[in-house]
Amino acid sequence: MAFTLREIVARLGGEAVGEVAAPLTGVATLDSAGPSHLTFLANPRYRSRLAGTRAGAVIVGPRDRDAATVPRIVSDNPYAYYAKAVALFHPEAPASPGVHPSAQVDAGAIVDAGAEIGPFVSVGAGSRIGAGVRIGAGCVIGANVTIGERTRLHPRVTVYDGCRLGARCIVHSGAVIGADGFGMAREGERWVKIPQVGAVRIGDDVEIGANTTIDRGALDDTVIEDGVKLDNQIQIGHNVRIGAHTAMAGCAAVAGSTRIGRHCAIGGAARIIGHLTIADHVTISAAAVVTKSITRAGTYAGTLPSAPSREWAKTVARLRSLDRLTKRIRDLEKRLPVKRKR
Amino acid sequence: MAFTLREIVARLGGEAVGEVAAPLTGVATLDSAGPSHLTFLANPRYRSRLAGTRAGAVIVGPRDRDAATVPRIVSDNPYAYYAKAVALFHPEAPASPGVHPSAQVDAGAIVDAGAEIGPFVSVGAGSRIGAGVRIGAGCVIGANVTIGERTRLHPRVTVYDGCRLGARCIVHSGAVIGADGFGMAREGERWVKIPQVGAVRIGDDVEIGANTTIDRGALDDTVIEDGVKLDNQIQIGHNVRIGAHTAMAGCAAVAGSTRIGRHCAIGGAARIIGHLTIADHVTISAAAVVTKSITRAGTYAGTLPSAPSREWAKTVARLRSLDRLTKRIRDLEKRLPVKRKR
Amino acid sequence: MAFTLREIVARLGGEAVGEVAAPLTGVATLDSAGPSHLTFLANPRYRSRLAGTRAGAVIVGPRDRDAATVPRIVSDNPYAYYAKAVALFHPEAPASPGVHPSAQVDAGAIVDAGAEIGPFVSVGAGSRIGAGVRIGAGCVIGANVTIGERTRLHPRVTVYDGCRLGARCIVHSGAVIGADGFGMAREGERWVKIPQVGAVRIGDDVEIGANTTIDRGALDDTVIEDGVKLDNQIQIGHNVRIGAHTAMAGCAAVAGSTRIGRHCAIGGAARIIGHLTIADHVTISAAAVVTKSITRAGTYAGTLPSAPSREWAKTVARLRSLDRLTKRIRDLEKRLPVKRKR
Repeated sequence: MAFTLREIVARLGGEAVGEVAAPLTGVATLDSAGPSHLTFLANPRYRSRLAGTRAGAVIVGPRDRDAATVPRIVSDNPYAYYAKAVALFHPEAPASPGVHPSAQVDAGAIVDAGAEIGPFVSVGAGSRIGAGVRIGAGCVIGANVTIGERTRLHPRVTVYDGCRLGARCIVHSGAVIGADGFGMAREGERWVKIPQVGAVRIGDDVEIGANTTIDRGALDDTVIEDGVKLDNQIQIGHNVRIGAHTAMAGCAAVAGSTRIGRHCAIGGAARIIGHLTIADHVTISAAAVVTKSITRAGTYAGTLPSAPSREWAKTVARLRSLDRLTKRIRDLEKRLPVKRKR
Repeated sequence: MAFTLREIVARLGGEAVGEVAAPLTGVATLDSAGPSHLTFLANPRYRSRLAGTRAGAVIVGPRDRDAATVPRIVSDNPYAYYAKAVALFHPEAPASPGVHPSAQVDAGAIVDAGAEIGPFVSVGAGSRIGAGVRIGAGCVIGANVTIGERTRLHPRVTVYDGCRLGARCIVHSGAVIGADGFGMAREGERWVKIPQVGAVRIGDDVEIGANTTIDRGALDDTVIEDGVKLDNQIQIGHNVRIGAHTAMAGCAAVAGSTRIGRHCAIGGAARIIGHLTIADHVTISAAAVVTKSITRAGTYAGTLPSAPSREWAKTVARLRSLDRLTKRIRDLEKRLPVKRKR
Repeated sequence: MAFTLREIVARLGGEAVGEVAAPLTGVATLDSAGPSHLTFLANPRYRSRLAGTRAGAVIVGPRDRDAATVPRIVSDNPYAYYAKAVALFHPEAPASPGVHPSAQVDAGAIVDAGAEIGPFVSVGAGSRIGAGVRIGAGCVIGANVTIGERTRLHPRVTVYDGCRLGARCIVHSGAVIGADGFGMAREGERWVKIPQVGAVRIGDDVEIGANTTIDRGALDDTVIEDGVKLDNQIQIGHNVRIGAHTAMAGCAAVAGSTRIGRHCAIGGAARIIGHLTIADHVTISAAAVVTKSITRAGTYAGTLPSAPSREWAKTVARLRSLDRLTKRIRDLEKRLPVKRKR
């Protein structure tokens, strides 16, 4: 597959500058691109590398329109343009409609004729699989599950009974949607399980990473709104609600009943405890632990950066000696004559 | 399925107050319950919502016996009562005995006639599957595995060779029981693998969450005692022992050879390093890191709450300036006349 | 299977001292070993237990050559010797060549005649499976995957299209290799997916733990070099490179584009943010968060140990009061007469 700059801007927009008729065969980074590659400059930090690139063409922002001499595409959003250019060179394979002979689809399930069901997949009674859906090898779809049009489940995804996924979602291998939330009541010294009878409701255009787990609700549903992007190994507790277009990086975790707003960005390995409310447009930095509700948009942090071990040991010791330090200050204050004015 | 208050207390105990003959069709939260729903008040924080509920009946504690006007069940433990009421309305489906024709059960395995083996399951030689066991689609049971009566494995669980699960356990999708512990010896600049020849031994009434991993022991076994409840994405290292009725929330991790007592409550994402001993009845708060053995029951914490980024940056800076601060105090102490008495 | 000390040193080296002809049937810990067991003393901390062991023989270092009276093997590296002794008593089962009749191997895949393909495995077009490879039940191997000689995939591993594993690797159940990296561009208030068209390239002798995820690269590959050992539930972001013989303990996570050196030891649950460079021979302690590149070999830490809750609450309060404390010191400095000399 090859495209000229002229063909690319015809499909994706932007302005082509310089040689527009040479064929390009793919997208590559500034450093590794060769003469047949399109590359991109989205982060000004890498601007100096522009001079040295061997790329056949480059996507730049308006500010860099004239910084480059190589053929280029000028776009207001070079990073999004790059995303679309990669998609142009690497189009998603469409569904190959049909149910693999090894799959076990319950007679009471409704599978659209345009859906692709892979080997060793099982689909339970009452489930509805939409048009253009692709379900990879070894997925297990429970009973009464709904999967919207053109959603793709990579291999080995589990969707428990009664959960619903919208259209155009992508779910990566090993994800588990709808396992029981962690609900137990103490009775004496034992735990009584609280049956988890809510489900998981996932909107359209949601992406769910590998081995991520989203628990079903206790009574009401756990809800993932449209356009949410979840990276790998994320844990979403029961009855959580994640607002539309929020993105969470790998290993983040949200405990039960917390509501996260729309357009939030949750850093990798961030931890949000249960029963909180996080406002819209909140950014949480990587590995921070959120213990209180956040009512205002903004950026929140909470991680101590690591340090050489000896230095770190001193930090820990100092922190522990703060009590004594405070006492020494109090002593000094007592020994000083009373201040007259201030 | 519908029950009247009278029928519910006949089965679950407690005292019915008010209208006892109206049919109820399910359990719902205080906020979402309608006239045909039973709801519950377990947390006094939500007491004010009692007045506004549209529920047909409510489970309350003795203190709230007369606070409510709606029909109600009075129980000493309304939360546990709620758990049982949900189970009453949503009884677990029993096993549908039989081996799915697609399953691969080794001729040397012993599967009870009352067990249910789902599609695409494989069971190795020498394994014993008890009565009433349900094994979901795509589970892989190694050789010489024992699974006790009425234990349920949800789809896509792996149990490695030689591991044993007790009765009435619940294991969620994606859990891996008995993978190798992380044991290696250095030899020059390379690692020599230490074969992990212990197994995993799991008691009765244990619940294991989605994508949780429990490693087999190096020489002796990793042991999970009766009634332990593990949430999702928990990692249990080799030769760990977890005492009976301890509960661990999502993403907690326990490194090798640590022993955790009975009746502990380990918060989500808490980390416990290896070779420690944790006493009985210890509570660890969410995201805390435990680096030393804990010999006394009690509550332990260790997380710095996140804050707005600028404020947090100051905290980090101050922490780093503690050395200088200490020096300034020492200077002040030197400059003050020696204290006579105290 | 039984070996005498004489047979063991003939195979594994070292010096046998004392009775060398008695048969030993296995390896056990100092505490649990009986008269037919070989045990080992690798950690001087446990030296006192040597006197009480009932073991038939013990592996010791040169310093303990005469400390023990039981028959013994003297080795410069008793821990590595122990590893090899366990492997002697518990040899890995070789592949049982052949493709299970239930497996789905694409006609365009090349499976070596000496490879073992388990039940419910699918292998895509263009993939090459080497000699002696074992692929466990329910694994999903995409298209154009290469798996080197004698590599073992435990059950339920996913390898996405185009990824390559070297020889003699071990991959545990639930691992996902080659899922999409978390790449998105903002466009207005929505996210545009950046197709991830790099792959994952894994060297020889790599071990990958249960439910670990290694994302494919965005444009270039994610690279795991020879001899790397990854424990369970590790997350490796796209375009990460991990240097040869580095070991990472459970639940560690490395964000995108970070490069980790050779011979590093990354503690459990350590978090390394994206776009960093970590030098060779760096040790990161458990649960530390690395936020900056590390240019020098050494040990780095960053975790505050947990404490009893009330004590911890004080620590947090003191940390927050540092501003006021600093002000009090400044006040004291103002109130003291100017220092003459120092």
